[in-house]
Amino acid sequence: MVLEFWYEFASTYSYPAAMRIARLAEAAGVTVEWRPFLLGPIFAAQGWRDSPFNLYPAKGEYMWRDMARICAREGLVLQKPVRFPQNSLKAARVALGAPDIAGFSRAVYAANFAERKDISDDAVLSDILGADSRAAAQANKDALRAQTGTAMARGIFGAPSFVVDGELFWGNDRLEEAIAWATTSRRRSG
Amino acid sequence: MVLEFWYEFASTYSYPAAMRIARLAEAAGVTVEWRPFLLGPIFAAQGWRDSPFNLYPAKGEYMWRDMARICAREGLVLQKPVRFPQNSLKAARVALGAPDIAGFSRAVYAANFAERKDISDDAVLSDILGADSRAAAQANKDALRAQTGTAMARGIFGAPSFVVDGELFWGNDRLEEAIAWATTSRRRSG
Repeated sequence: MVLEFWYEFASTYSYPAAMRIARLAEAAGVTVEWRPFLLGPIFAAQGWRDSPFNLYPAKGEYMWRDMARICAREGLVLQKPVRFPQNSLKAARVALGAPDIAGFSRAVYAANFAERKDISDDAVLSDILGADSRAAAQANKDALRAQTGTAMARGIFGAPSFVVDGELFWGNDRLEEAIAWATTSRRRSG
Repeated sequence: MVLEFWYEFASTYSYPAAMRIARLAEAAGVTVEWRPFLLGPIFAAQGWRDSPFNLYPAKGEYMWRDMARICAREGLVLQKPVRFPQNSLKAARVALGAPDIAGFSRAVYAANFAERKDISDDAVLSDILGADSRAAAQANKDALRAQTGTAMARGIFGAPSFVVDGELFWGNDRLEEAIAWATTSRRRSG
């Protein structure tokens, strides 16, 4: 069974999800499709020109505290990024062509939320990719636009999201449920 | 150890939380303080004049599907209310003076989300209370205003929320974590 993992490199809660998903999916025998996309156009369609965590300060303050608790539990380093949200456009484009998209994506999340690096910096991305990130980014412009369109068509409105057999789950805290759904679907059809 | 349970009678995710909390807290030896409040003034302060689930349709559609999965898992009936969100003002005022606030609150949630009753109807509320709800509502106007002010002071921006020893948790899906926090705090101080 396939689980689509929809993530945005600027999204805080996508960080623990990206770090947890391979282990959980492998233990359950579920295949993960890594699907980076951009939340910016989706938020803009809702009238937001910034992260809701910046637009609504009480929500933002809570989110950072909630993230601290989650990362402590998962043994993940968490440092406030150089800015929030970071510009994730280039990273998402590069990810779409990366030979190891899972490894590349995890390294971008670590750069953003653990190492205080600028993930819109070509040098940072090239270093992670092990090749010139500018060429990769240019090659995948159209692919990222299509991917974000597919996210909207799936009804996705936030990140991380998981889609299993047409069923949508939103949030790092729904990862276990999405994986359980995938294993149950497999039993139903098998 | 005391866990403050902050809930809003119009809030969908407060329904499963209200139905689960007594059982989980009792098993953990945690005391629950039932704290009904109004989200309306808090949303209005953020510029929202309706539920975000109505303002953002993709989010709303997801919420109802997510609620269906949660209620199925918990063995709770879920029917779309007579309107969403319902006017919860009277119910919250009555709750603040109800002899059995937990029992009254659970019955209001059942009326709203399982029985398709109008929870702003005095007859519905009087029937649940077993007394004239109009007198109770009138007596608790100021108490509810103060309670909602306290919610804002706690940094609460949504429902359900849980506060343990100054630590805020938001969402039905954080209930287990809030209870675990309460039992750990007790060990720390005991």
